[in-house]
Amino acid sequence: MLKIEHLGIAVKNLDEAISTYEQLLNTPCYKTEAVESEGVNTAFFQTGESKIELLESTRPESPISKFIEKKGEGIHHIAFEVENIQAEMKRLAALGFTILNEHPKKGADNKLICFLHPKNTNGVLIELCQELTTS
Amino acid sequence: MLKIEHLGIAVKNLDEAISTYEQLLNTPCYKTEAVESEGVNTAFFQTGESKIELLESTRPESPISKFIEKKGEGIHHIAFEVENIQAEMKRLAALGFTILNEHPKKGADNKLICFLHPKNTNGVLIELCQELTTS
Repeated sequence: MLKIEHLGIAVKNLDEAISTYEQLLNTPCYKTEAVESEGVNTAFFQTGESKIELLESTRPESPISKFIEKKGEGIHHIAFEVENIQAEMKRLAALGFTILNEHPKKGADNKLICFLHPKNTNGVLIELCQELTTS
Repeated sequence: MLKIEHLGIAVKNLDEAISTYEQLLNTPCYKTEAVESEGVNTAFFQTGESKIELLESTRPESPISKFIEKKGEGIHHIAFEVENIQAEMKRLAALGFTILNEHPKKGADNKLICFLHPKNTNGVLIELCQELTTS
């Protein structure tokens, strides 16, 4: 794992949360992005080498809707940047971690991503992400 | 906020969690520390410029015991490093955030710390921390 790439925070109202986190972090939101396939609108803030990603659901059956229904707003996942996502998935599967995606999928912010089941990581939903090169 | 200083994860059994996170992060735990005043044993891992802090309760009435009882194991707080904790506490109080400590207190890892109430931050418990200089 190279670093914490971002922390995902589930929120009910993205506009209100953007305003809150702009004040909290004392830095403007630098990007918003809709990820249709996941049913979320996202907003990003930079803090040091990591990002804060706010996540608002766009439909009632999305993972973020279900999370908020069950646990309320709050931290949803930690994403770690990796150099080679396929190699990390293989390494972690061999150690007994449960990989929730058979293959990496396209996530927000131009990344290949996959998730690890929280049952093996003390209740923490872990995302692995690899930056997609555009060349 | 300068960066994510660390992420605090509440765990039931520190030894088992250390083994899990050593495998997950592919890096050894570099320090353990008991914080008597908070009723916790802690273990630290470096990932990029940030740390992962595992937190195990040492008594039933500690904040970590209560958190696990209510929500189960998982991410407990995000800590942001600040240059001047007193100035940040003043700035955030003026914006309407609820500061949970009147004065900064001594935390793990040689830091001055304070907490913000999650009711103003979309359910996220936020810690501010300032490195204590030893000179």
